[in-house]
Amino acid sequence: MRASPCCLADGMQRTYTVKAIGTVSCSRSEPVDDDWDSETTEILLDAAVLGANASSGLADFSHIEVIYVFDRVDDDAIVSDARRPRGNPDWPVVGILAQRGKNRPNRIGATICEVVTVNGGSIVVKGLDAIDGPPVIDIKPVMSGFLPRTDVVEPTWAKEIMEGYW
Amino acid sequence: MRASPCCLADGMQRTYTVKAIGTVSCSRSEPVDDDWDSETTEILLDAAVLGANASSGLADFSHIEVIYVFDRVDDDAIVSDARRPRGNPDWPVVGILAQRGKNRPNRIGATICEVVTVNGGSIVVKGLDAIDGPPVIDIKPVMSGFLPRTDVVEPTWAKEIMEGYW
Repeated sequence: MRASPCCLADGMQRTYTVKAIGTVSCSRSEPVDDDWDSETTEILLDAAVLGANASSGLADFSHIEVIYVFDRVDDDAIVSDARRPRGNPDWPVVGILAQRGKNRPNRIGATICEVVTVNGGSIVVKGLDAIDGPPVIDIKPVMSGFLPRTDVVEPTWAKEIMEGYW
Repeated sequence: MRASPCCLADGMQRTYTVKAIGTVSCSRSEPVDDDWDSETTEILLDAAVLGANASSGLADFSHIEVIYVFDRVDDDAIVSDARRPRGNPDWPVVGILAQRGKNRPNRIGATICEVVTVNGGSIVVKGLDAIDGPPVIDIKPVMSGFLPRTDVVEPTWAKEIMEGYW
């Protein structure tokens, strides 16, 4: 039953190969931390990987979650333990899994953004916090049933870090 | 600047290697579609990949998003175009990117679930729709600032499909 092509022996580590299904295309070429809602971003789907109807029905959703790879983060910049978010001395040292920054194991970003238009292999969104170029590895519709079903609680720093973000 | 170890030439395709940072451990061994909130699930982090403090601070969040791989989905079961969700004739044919089902390109699941306890390499959650065994490739805290900032709109089938899910 296990899909052998996706799982390669690498000592004791389990590794998986994922492929780009599309590419982020936008005007922001360098990573900066804030003001992402000013960006309108196009995701160009890869017709070699997806069928022509892979995005059909997506326009019936107001939001999608875009899963992508921070492919410009070098191996030696990855944090696998703890650090202060953005290196800010006002915020506590917390584990990388308690942060959403890009310098993380597997470099995966996952952002909910607003659908502007869907036109076959072109999906235009607002509020995707990705620069120009990263590979998109999945797109999912935001269903209300998959959002938190109980009150969201978070530490103070997690609110402060979002203050100029959008 | 590009991190060469993550990006392998494969014809025109861009592929990336991701590694398991942990494993889902729970009592449900076969995929069924509904009643996931009855499950309490433990995520066991891999100490060979993450530092001892990678999960520190996570208990200050009520919810996390778990990104994992549906590693039991065979290559030939992957849908890269369109289909009816769950094959249900009552629902429309929609693109795989407009659905959240497991038979998708790259087999990536992303689920927001409730934090029960965090204890170093053990994270216990409620509402993770994964069976026993899948590799976890990322964990992110749910920050209110990353949830939808405008009203969520979705088609009728997307509400109906969630009716017994949790």
